[in-house]
Parts: sequence; C-alpha cells; structure tokens
Amino acid sequence: MNILFADKFPDKQAAVLRAAGHDCVFNPELGAEDLAGALGGFEVLVVRSTQVSAAAVAAGGALRMIIRAGAGTNTIDKAAAAAAGMFVCNVPGRNALAVAELTLGLILAVDRRIADNVRDLRAGKWNKKKYSTAAGVYGKTIGIVGLGAIGLAVAERAHAFGMNISAVYKPQRPAKAQDFLRALGVDYVDSMEQLAAAGDILTLHVPQSPQTRKLVDAKLLARMKPGAILINTSRGDVVDEAALIRAMDEKGIRAGLDVYAGEPGAGEGEFTSALAQHPNVYGTHHIGASTDQAQDAVAEGVLEIIAAFADGKALHCVNAPLQAAAEAPE
Amino acid sequence: MNILFADKFPDKQAAVLRAAGHDCVFNPELGAEDLAGALGGFEVLVVRSTQVSAAAVAAGGALRMIIRAGAGTNTIDKAAAAAAGMFVCNVPGRNALAVAELTLGLILAVDRRIADNVRDLRAGKWNKKKYSTAAGVYGKTIGIVGLGAIGLAVAERAHAFGMNISAVYKPQRPAKAQDFLRALGVDYVDSMEQLAAAGDILTLHVPQSPQTRKLVDAKLLARMKPGAILINTSRGDVVDEAALIRAMDEKGIRAGLDVYAGEPGAGEGEFTSALAQHPNVYGTHHIGASTDQAQDAVAEGVLEIIAAFADGKALHCVNAPLQAAAEAPE
Repeated sequence: MNILFADKFPDKQAAVLRAAGHDCVFNPELGAEDLAGALGGFEVLVVRSTQVSAAAVAAGGALRMIIRAGAGTNTIDKAAAAAAGMFVCNVPGRNALAVAELTLGLILAVDRRIADNVRDLRAGKWNKKKYSTAAGVYGKTIGIVGLGAIGLAVAERAHAFGMNISAVYKPQRPAKAQDFLRALGVDYVDSMEQLAAAGDILTLHVPQSPQTRKLVDAKLLARMKPGAILINTSRGDVVDEAALIRAMDEKGIRAGLDVYAGEPGAGEGEFTSALAQHPNVYGTHHIGASTDQAQDAVAEGVLEIIAAFADGKALHCVNAPLQAAAEAPE
Repeated sequence: MNILFADKFPDKQAAVLRAAGHDCVFNPELGAEDLAGALGGFEVLVVRSTQVSAAAVAAGGALRMIIRAGAGTNTIDKAAAAAAGMFVCNVPGRNALAVAELTLGLILAVDRRIADNVRDLRAGKWNKKKYSTAAGVYGKTIGIVGLGAIGLAVAERAHAFGMNISAVYKPQRPAKAQDFLRALGVDYVDSMEQLAAAGDILTLHVPQSPQTRKLVDAKLLARMKPGAILINTSRGDVVDEAALIRAMDEKGIRAGLDVYAGEPGAGEGEFTSALAQHPNVYGTHHIGASTDQAQDAVAEGVLEIIAAFADGKALHCVNAPLQAAAEAPE
C-alpha cells in the first residue's frame, strides 16, 4: 500500500513496513494546512498530532484509512471521514505507561515544588526554609477519573507510593480492571462530587467527548479540599479553565497540566495562557505520550493495523464508515 | 527533663511531651552560632539541620543527650560529645519514604524535563517539539547505591514503574532486605563500576563517611552511559562535584541533586554553585526529609528516644560516650 506519515515515525518500524513491500513516504514537517495538498495517491495516512480536517478528507481521493498513532482522535474529523468511506483507527493503550509516568512526575513535582526549587537554585538563591513545607504523598488519597489503561497504570504506581486509590464505582468496567483495582485496595465512591471531596489529588484520564467537556467545573472544584492537587494529562477541554484559575486564587488549588483548551497544534510557537502561566501550575507541553518507549509501542500498534488492513480488516476503527455508507441517502 | 528544640517540631508531639511532664523550650530560629549561648540548664537538645559544634558541646554544662531528628548526624560533633559524656542519638529510617518520593520525583522530572517545561510555558513559549524527546523510565535500569530503608523504598517504587533494579551484592545485608530485593527481581553485580556501567539511572542512598567521600568520582562517571541520570539525595560529599560537571559537559550526564558539598547550613541565603546552576542539573534545597509525613514520623521517633532516656536508656546512640569515658586518661 501507499502510506503517508505526516509525523515522526521510528526507523525500526519503518523498516518493517518497507520489508513488507509497502511504499512509505515520511514527511514529519507536514502541517494541517499542507495536508490536503499532499494526500494525492496515498491509501493510508498515519498522523500523531497533525490535525486532519474535513478539507483534508475531501482532498484524499484514494485515501481509505487514517491511522492515529496514539489514543485520542479529537484532532481528526471522524464524521467527514466516515461520510467519505474512510476508516479512522487509533492505537489505544500503548502510551499508557508514558502518560502514567508524567502523571506521577507532575504529582511529585507539584508536591515538592521541584520546578521552583530549580529556578531559585539557578538564580543563586538557597531557600531550604521555603521548600521544606511539602505534605508528602504517602498515605494521601488520589481520586482517579477514568480507569482505562492509563488510569490503571496510574493506580498501580500511586499504590506503590502508599497512596489510597479512590474511584467512582462503575459496574460496567471489565472484570479484569475490577479485580486489579480491588487488589490495590480501591475505595469506591458513588459520584464525581464525592471523589473530588475525598481526594488530596484528583487526576483525569478520560477521552475528549461531549460528555467529558468541562467535567471539572466550578461546582466540582468547590468540592475539592483547599490546597489539593489537580492533574490533567488528558485533554484541555475536560477542565473549565476559568473556574480552575479562580479555584487556584481563592483556595490554593495547585495543578499539574499537560494539556490546555486551545493549545497550539504546532510543535513550537508562542502560547499566552493565564492558566499555563499561573504560579500554582506546573505545565508541560502535551508530552504525555511522547517518550521513546511509548512511541515504539505505538508504532508496533500501527504495524498491526496496517497488516490487518492489508488483510481486509479495520482494527480499532473508531468511526463507522460502513454504517455511514449504509445510512447515506441514495 | 529540660529539653531545648533548636529547630521546628510538630505541635502534636510537643503536646505529648508536655503531658508527660517535660519542660520543653521551642526556639526554631536558633542558629549554630547562637547555640552555645542558649544551652544553659538543658539536659536534652533536639536538632534537625542546626549544626552542633565542639564549642556548643563545651557550653552545654548540663547537657546529657543530643537528638538528631533525622538520620544523618554529620552536622553534630559526635567525638566532642562523646568526650564530654553526651549521647548523640538519631532517628533512622523514618524519613525513608519522603526521600524516596523526592528521588522518584527527580528521576521523572529530569527524564521529562518538567522544570524547563514549566519555565518555558511561564515565559509564553510553546515547545512540544523540544520536550517530546524523553526516553521514559519503563524498562530502564536503575542502579541503587545503599540499600537501607531509603534505598529499599526507592527500589519498591522504581519496580512499580517497570524499572529493572540493579545493586552490588553484599552478603552482610539483613535477610529481610535480601528477600525484599529478590522479590523485586534485583540484578546483582559485583562492583560499583559494573553498577555504573549497567544503569540508565544511578541513585545514591549512603551516609556521609570517610568511606563514601567522593564515591562518585571521575573514574566512576567515566563508566556511566552517555546521557545517564545521576540522583543524589544523600550528602554532597559523596560526589566529586568538579568531575560531575565535566561528565555533564562531555557526555551529557544529567543529574537530580538535593545536596551539595558546602551547601548553606541556614534556611535561606545566597548560594553560588556551578553545579546547582548547571543546565543539566535539577536541584532542590536539601528537602529530602522535609515533608509533613516524614517530620511527623521522625517526631514520633524523638518521643521514643526521650521516653527511653527517661528510663535510663540511650536508644539509637551513634557515638559512644561511655566507651569514650572508659578509654579516657585518668
């Protein structure tokens, strides 16, 4: 097949595809606006963060599948792709460990104020007195919102630190996840409000969707303990950012954030954000899934999807192009 | 007994001492130079980081015990105290979890460059491209030097992240520690040189002593992999700092450091250090044991020592005043 990679892809897995006889073009510098002009003749498009708009879909004459080398598909116009008969597939779960590592890294950095420590030492200031006031995380309660692969990996690590795991009970969770959580001694609560009230730390691991939009709003933030820590390594839309800024100013909520509503799609540039610049925020640049380990694991997932597609199957399809075709007016 | 506390001590444990009939004076602002003048009449002195010099010991006419509310006793002149017939006691192991938390926090912060992420976002810069190049810690090898309570707590947490634990085999380690390490799947090596060569991360958890002085020197740093991470939350003296700066410049070693040779004894002030200001260093202000959780656990240990002393026993005595008395010329 003819495959266009519009973002970075590891050499090791690229070599496997070439050995299997696929024609691969790697153009990691392609931006969202260049995509429409670059799609001619390709049957498969592989993207990481590059946005795939309805215009790009319309320009992809031969395109039959769009693979998101990662879990979230909010950057792809899935409905437009479905209407055009194209499969949109993702690689779920493979970046879970990398996101969980960043989540714990942000929790520990916020608790001990590591970034401010580094700033002061680099400026020649010694301030042991100021930085000797952390709570520590042993014995603290962490509320985990979303218990897919990432949430479970966070739970496993938090448990090793002696944190108490808290979650909203959902009977529909797979038995394996239920067993895993029970083995970690999970404390179940009945609602998000109870979860927010119980936690010293609240961490978000849900996909972007209409249901999760502003899930963390003023009402929920009002339930959190003063000085509690909010971690968001999921999607910026999940948090009402104006309400979070107020909660930081009014009750000392601290936050570790990897994602922002309206964050740049590009790899670099200016980004003025009252939230990311707030002194109570430790922010990273949407790098949750961006480790060598995760990108290697995700690339292996891409290979599986391409091999299945060569066999006529659409693995991990998250839109429904066949259904769209069946439902389309004649 | 009359007890002087020359550093912060939690209210909860202070109340227990008062209820037991002890006369307690809390003067957390006392510095090393004020100590000699403040000791008159006290039988017990409790310190955290405040230095206790031979001059202070000489001025402590009624003083019979110096309690270090923490593990390391390098800030106390133990020999002078022994010669004066004073017990120096410490509270070992109680700060292990706090130090282990900072150790993992520094590892994750260095791997993902969290402090530089925070700095750039606060300056209005978005640079996902630059920060998307971390290795991740899953599957990496961590060499742990020193496997007392802190080293074991680090091992337990690193194992939960899927790191491989590596250590030098020492037959004299307690059976309980050996069993614990075996359960974590430890890989034993024969020497520090092999440990340095095998690790993606090398972390130090040894006390300050003539044997550990400059344990990490140019020769050992030469064995480390380019780009490897060195963590030191033990004592600054354990690392040859000039050699570390060279290894950072020449082969990209990165470091997470909580301690520095010649670090200020005071809680705040100026601190000019080529090491702490190096761009490859994430530095904190000797805050490893400084969490509420650890200070609470240490204060409980202080209560045990005072109760034992009221009973005529010197618990966790680290000098040998009785032996010094027996050996002294008549």
